[in-house]
Amino acid sequence: MIFSSLNINKEEKIHIQIQNHIKKEIDKGILKKGSKLPSTREVSKVLGISRNSVILAYENLENEGIIETFRGKGTFVAIEKEIKSDDFKVKWNNFTEDYGRLCEELDVVKTELPWKRGMISFKSIAPDESFFDLEEFKRAFLNVFSMEGDKLLNYGYAKGYKPLIEYIKEYMRKKGVLTDGKDILITNGFTEAFDILLSTLTKPNDVIACENPTHNTAIKIMKAHKLNIKPIKMDDDGINLDSLEETLKKYTPKIIYLIPSYHNPTGIVMDGEKRQNVYNICKKYKVPIIEDGFNEELVYSSSHVAPLIALSNMGNGVIYAGSFSKILFPGIRIGWIFADEKLINVLESVKRARNIHTSFIDQGIFHKYMESGSFKRYVKKIRKYYKDRYDFTIKTIEKYIPYDEVLGNGGLYIFVKINGLNTRDILRECYKRNVVFMPGDIFFINKEEKNWMRIGFSRTSEEEIEEGIKIIGEVIFSLKSKNN
Amino acid sequence: MIFSSLNINKEEKIHIQIQNHIKKEIDKGILKKGSKLPSTREVSKVLGISRNSVILAYENLENEGIIETFRGKGTFVAIEKEIKSDDFKVKWNNFTEDYGRLCEELDVVKTELPWKRGMISFKSIAPDESFFDLEEFKRAFLNVFSMEGDKLLNYGYAKGYKPLIEYIKEYMRKKGVLTDGKDILITNGFTEAFDILLSTLTKPNDVIACENPTHNTAIKIMKAHKLNIKPIKMDDDGINLDSLEETLKKYTPKIIYLIPSYHNPTGIVMDGEKRQNVYNICKKYKVPIIEDGFNEELVYSSSHVAPLIALSNMGNGVIYAGSFSKILFPGIRIGWIFADEKLINVLESVKRARNIHTSFIDQGIFHKYMESGSFKRYVKKIRKYYKDRYDFTIKTIEKYIPYDEVLGNGGLYIFVKINGLNTRDILRECYKRNVVFMPGDIFFINKEEKNWMRIGFSRTSEEEIEEGIKIIGEVIFSLKSKNN
Repeated sequence: MIFSSLNINKEEKIHIQIQNHIKKEIDKGILKKGSKLPSTREVSKVLGISRNSVILAYENLENEGIIETFRGKGTFVAIEKEIKSDDFKVKWNNFTEDYGRLCEELDVVKTELPWKRGMISFKSIAPDESFFDLEEFKRAFLNVFSMEGDKLLNYGYAKGYKPLIEYIKEYMRKKGVLTDGKDILITNGFTEAFDILLSTLTKPNDVIACENPTHNTAIKIMKAHKLNIKPIKMDDDGINLDSLEETLKKYTPKIIYLIPSYHNPTGIVMDGEKRQNVYNICKKYKVPIIEDGFNEELVYSSSHVAPLIALSNMGNGVIYAGSFSKILFPGIRIGWIFADEKLINVLESVKRARNIHTSFIDQGIFHKYMESGSFKRYVKKIRKYYKDRYDFTIKTIEKYIPYDEVLGNGGLYIFVKINGLNTRDILRECYKRNVVFMPGDIFFINKEEKNWMRIGFSRTSEEEIEEGIKIIGEVIFSLKSKNN
Repeated sequence: MIFSSLNINKEEKIHIQIQNHIKKEIDKGILKKGSKLPSTREVSKVLGISRNSVILAYENLENEGIIETFRGKGTFVAIEKEIKSDDFKVKWNNFTEDYGRLCEELDVVKTELPWKRGMISFKSIAPDESFFDLEEFKRAFLNVFSMEGDKLLNYGYAKGYKPLIEYIKEYMRKKGVLTDGKDILITNGFTEAFDILLSTLTKPNDVIACENPTHNTAIKIMKAHKLNIKPIKMDDDGINLDSLEETLKKYTPKIIYLIPSYHNPTGIVMDGEKRQNVYNICKKYKVPIIEDGFNEELVYSSSHVAPLIALSNMGNGVIYAGSFSKILFPGIRIGWIFADEKLINVLESVKRARNIHTSFIDQGIFHKYMESGSFKRYVKKIRKYYKDRYDFTIKTIEKYIPYDEVLGNGGLYIFVKINGLNTRDILRECYKRNVVFMPGDIFFINKEEKNWMRIGFSRTSEEEIEEGIKIIGEVIFSLKSKNN
C-alpha cells in the first residue's frame, strides 16, 4: 500500500507528513490522476496513528485541489503529475533484429494493395463464412462446456486435447495412413506448424527445396528463417520430376516442402502416380518431406487420393502438416503435425516454449463438432458449392479473359497467365475500378515470374465473379492494345 | 480420381485392364485397405466404357477377396499392401537443431517429478478452476456468438480483436499508464509475448539482464534464444539496486526482464519507491525494460501500485507483457504486449508469421466477459480466497517447517529456504509420501541455489495444505537429524 514506505517521525506534525508523502508519490508518478487512496480508517490502522490526523491531511489536500472525494466511492488523486521532457526514449527500429525486419518486409498484408469496402475481391482464399453451420458450432460448445468447461478453461497439455488427437489419428487412418509409431501435435493452424518445424529442424543457410511457385506464407517463413531455398519447376500436372531429381541430387536439401493437393497458387492436384514418383525420388536421396495437407478435404472425386505420408507405410520420412482452416473456422486456429513420435516429442517441448498450448476450449468445441458428424455434412455441402463456383469462374474466365494459361483442378482459386503483361500493371488498373486479385509474383521464390495472377473465388458471389472477371478482361484488352 | 491415370488400350479386355489397374494402385500403396472405390457408374462415365465391364471387374476382384461391397455404402479395398522393409527411415534426433534440443532439455514438464493422482501438489500455480464463474463465461459466449459468430470464426487480424484491444487500453489507463503513441498486440499468453519479443529484439549472444531467481519459463526461453543472461541479486523487498546498477553499467544489456508484482518464485511485490529507483537506473543506462505484468491483478491493497510502464509517461522504454492466465481462464491463452506503436507494428508482422492471430472466438468471448463486469466481481472474490489461503499456508509453515527464510507478500506461492539441505533431497522423500513441490533451483539462472523450494497453494484445500506442509516438515526434521 501507498503508505507502507512512510515512516512517521516525531519532529513533524503527523498530518503534514501524510500530505507531503502523498504529494511526493504523485510527483514520483507512483500515484496517478484517478488513483484511489486507502480510506482514512485503513491509513490510521496501518500507520498506527489517530484517524483524525488522516482526515485533516485529506481535507487539506482536497482544499488544495490535489485529491477529491466522491461519496460512497472513496478518495482519488485529482491531478496529473507534470510530464518531464527527459522521458526515456528508445529508437525501436534500431533494436529490431533481422527476423523481425524480414517478417515485416515479407508481410503481404502490409505490402500489397488492401481490399476496401465495396471492392470485388479475388484476393482472399478464406472460406465463405455464410456456409458455416453456426447452430452446430453452438451446440458443440454447449455440449463440451457442460461436460468439462471448468477443465478446458484451465491449463491443458502442450500436445493437445486428447480426444481431438485421437479423432485426428483415426481421420489420418481413413486416409490410408499407418499411425503406428506416429503421433500428433496440435498447433495454431498450418502457419505455426510450419514455423515450429523449421525452428526445430533447420538453422540459417540450410538448404530447403520446394515447388516454385508455392504458398507465399511458406516462402515468408523460410526466408525469415534465412534458409537457402532451392526452387523446383512445375508442370501442368504438378512438380516436374526431372527438376526434382536434379535439385535433390545437386543440393541434397535438408528438407523438402510440398503441397500435393490444390497446390497454392496453381490449384493443381498431383495424381496418385506422380505422388508415388515424388515419394520415391525423395526416398532415394533421403530428403524428408514436409507435406502440406492444405485443402485436401476439398478433393471432389469419390476416390480419395492418398497423401504422400500414406505411401511411407512404416517409414517416418514424411511429416504431414494438416489444417482445416481453408474450409472451416480459420478464426479458431487449429491445425496439427502428424509425424514420427520421437519428432513429435521434441516438437511438443518447442510448442510449450512458444505458447504452452493451443486454446483448449477451442479444441474441445472443435472435437465435439467433428465427432457429431457435422463436419462430414459440411464438407459434402461445400464441395458442391465450391465446385459450382469453380466451374462458374472457369466459364467466366473463358468468356472474358484472353489468357495464355489457366491452372487449377478445383479448390478455391485459379492461376492465370497473361503473356506479355506484368499482372501488377493489370492490378493497378483493376484497383481503380474496384477489383482486386493476388499478383502472381509473390508466389515465386524470387518474384521472378510477372505474368501470373491468382483469382480466388471462395468469397465472391456469381454476380461479383461475372462483374469482376469482366473488368479484369477489359483492363487486359486495353493494356494489350496500348502495348501494340 | 483413381482411374484418371488409366488409358484404356484396344489389345486387352477392358475388365482385365480395370482389375490390373486397381491391383497396381494397391501395390503402389495409393489405394489402401478401406479406400472407397468410385461407383461402377462413375467409372464407366469417366473412362467412356460400358458399365458392364466395370461391374464384371469389380465382381472378379471381390471373388479374389481384393475388394468388398457393402450395400448402401459402396465398394472398398479389402486388403493391405505388403509393407516393404525398405521404408524411408529418418533419424530425427540427428535432424534436430540446438533450438529444439534446448526447448526439450529445459522443459520442466519432462524433467521434473510428475504429479500423480492422489498426490498433494504444491507444484502448480495455476488458478483453482472451481472459482471460475462458468455461467458468466457461457453467457459471454452466447452473447458474442449471436452477434458476430460467423465473423469470429473466419480469419481475423494479427493485432487482435479490436474491442478487446480497446478494452485493454482503457484497462492500462486505469493503472495510470499513458496510452498515447502506444499500441497493443494480443498474444497467446505471456509465454508467446516473451518469445515474440526476444525473437524480434535479440540475436544469439546478446546480453539480457533479469532478477535471479526468476520465472523458469522465462529462463527457458532466454536460453533457447541463446542469450547471455546476467543475473541480478534480490533482497527481501525485491531486486538489489546496487547489483542492478553494477550489472547495467558493466554489461549494458540489450534489455532487462523484470517482474515487479508477485515476482515468481519469491512472491515479492516491489513497492512504489523501489519501482521508481529501478526505472531511473534503467533509464540512466538506457536499457529498455520488459515488464512482466504477471499476477498484478492479485495485489490485495486498496491503493494500486502502478506498474513500471506508468512511470515512463510519454517515454517508450518499457514494454509491458500482460496476461490474466494465472488467475483466469489460462486454457484460452490470451495475453498482450503493450508498447510503443512502432514496435507493435513490427511485432504484428512477427505474430502473423508465427500463427496469423490468436483465436478470434476466444478473444470475443473474453472481451464480452470482461466488459460485463464479471471480471471485476471475480477478482474481488478470488483476492479474498487466495489471501485466506496465503495466510493459512504461512501459518501452517510457521507451525511445521523449520525454515530459515520465507519470502512472499501474497499471490499464489511462497518461497522457502532451508539452510543446509538440498531441497531436491527433501522432494525425493516427500514424493514417496505423495507430496510434491517445485524445487527452487530451476528458478536460478544456473541452478546454483539448492536450498529453496516454491510452495504453490492456488489449487490445494486447507486440509491438503495442513497435511502436505506437515509431511514436508517431518521430512526436513528427519533429514536434518540424519545430517547431524
